[in-house]
Amino acid sequence: MRILGIDPGSRITGFAVVEYDRSRGRSCGHGVIRPKAKGFPERLGEIFAGVVEVIDELKPDVLAIESVFVARNAQSAIKLGHARGAAICAATQAGLAVHEYAPRAIKLAVVGIGGADKEQVQHMMQQLLRLAEPASSDAADALAVALCHAHTQQHEARLAAATSGSIGGRP
Amino acid sequence: MRILGIDPGSRITGFAVVEYDRSRGRSCGHGVIRPKAKGFPERLGEIFAGVVEVIDELKPDVLAIESVFVARNAQSAIKLGHARGAAICAATQAGLAVHEYAPRAIKLAVVGIGGADKEQVQHMMQQLLRLAEPASSDAADALAVALCHAHTQQHEARLAAATSGSIGGRP
Repeated sequence: MRILGIDPGSRITGFAVVEYDRSRGRSCGHGVIRPKAKGFPERLGEIFAGVVEVIDELKPDVLAIESVFVARNAQSAIKLGHARGAAICAATQAGLAVHEYAPRAIKLAVVGIGGADKEQVQHMMQQLLRLAEPASSDAADALAVALCHAHTQQHEARLAAATSGSIGGRP
Repeated sequence: MRILGIDPGSRITGFAVVEYDRSRGRSCGHGVIRPKAKGFPERLGEIFAGVVEVIDELKPDVLAIESVFVARNAQSAIKLGHARGAAICAATQAGLAVHEYAPRAIKLAVVGIGGADKEQVQHMMQQLLRLAEPASSDAADALAVALCHAHTQQHEARLAAATSGSIGGRP
């Protein structure tokens, strides 16, 4: 399973594609999209085009993205909404399903602490994915949401297997 | 000039394509996109795909859209940001330039009153574009922003012509 993780932002959007197989993950590629245009609509267009390019190149199966948006104020909330909308549209037009995870759930899944700080996330991503060097903060957040989706899927698959096993084994 | 006007919203997105020539406008098509999916990301995908379809079918040259977002609360602001981002990305990926107009400027341009209400906008759109029946409120807002762009462009063209004329005529 190849998972695209996105940490959206109108100035910097982190992206990562994680391949996950038998409880081991590896990064197929991660980095950031930094729109260069001055105009806001053109910046959104760059985020959209950047995510389309990542999908074309690294062929993920699904998108995992933070579900909620802690914004400093209404203006930040609106800008974040636009950037997140651009990233989601790039995924849906490519036929990817979208899975959303709350920020605390992501940190809990990959660091073990719901209130983990950015450095802890960066450190854990480097350890778990055996990266030669730490990813930037935005790319690490993208890796984290992708890995959170992998863990969640694996957990659900195990639960399903255990449930069907007990039903079959103990009539 | 063919202008795509969009009135974005996560529940209803109004669209209109207005053709404008020699101070007369006509609607090439207008209506609303109502996403049917339950999930928010899928709804955004429907808005994006709907706007792409309008662009493919009616071939507008530019997008005109409200610049600001009067939202009841942070949650509404975020949802509106997403919907607006989806519409803008659909336009930029098709190569359309994006022009933004403040709500008051739009109402002033098409009704003559910055604080005009929705019924007044609907009425004026029916009159100015000689519509057989009034457009729905969301479609009328989309027609209005498209027409506002047409008027603004025409006004700027006249100003430019007048300026170059006076320089040439009176040395």
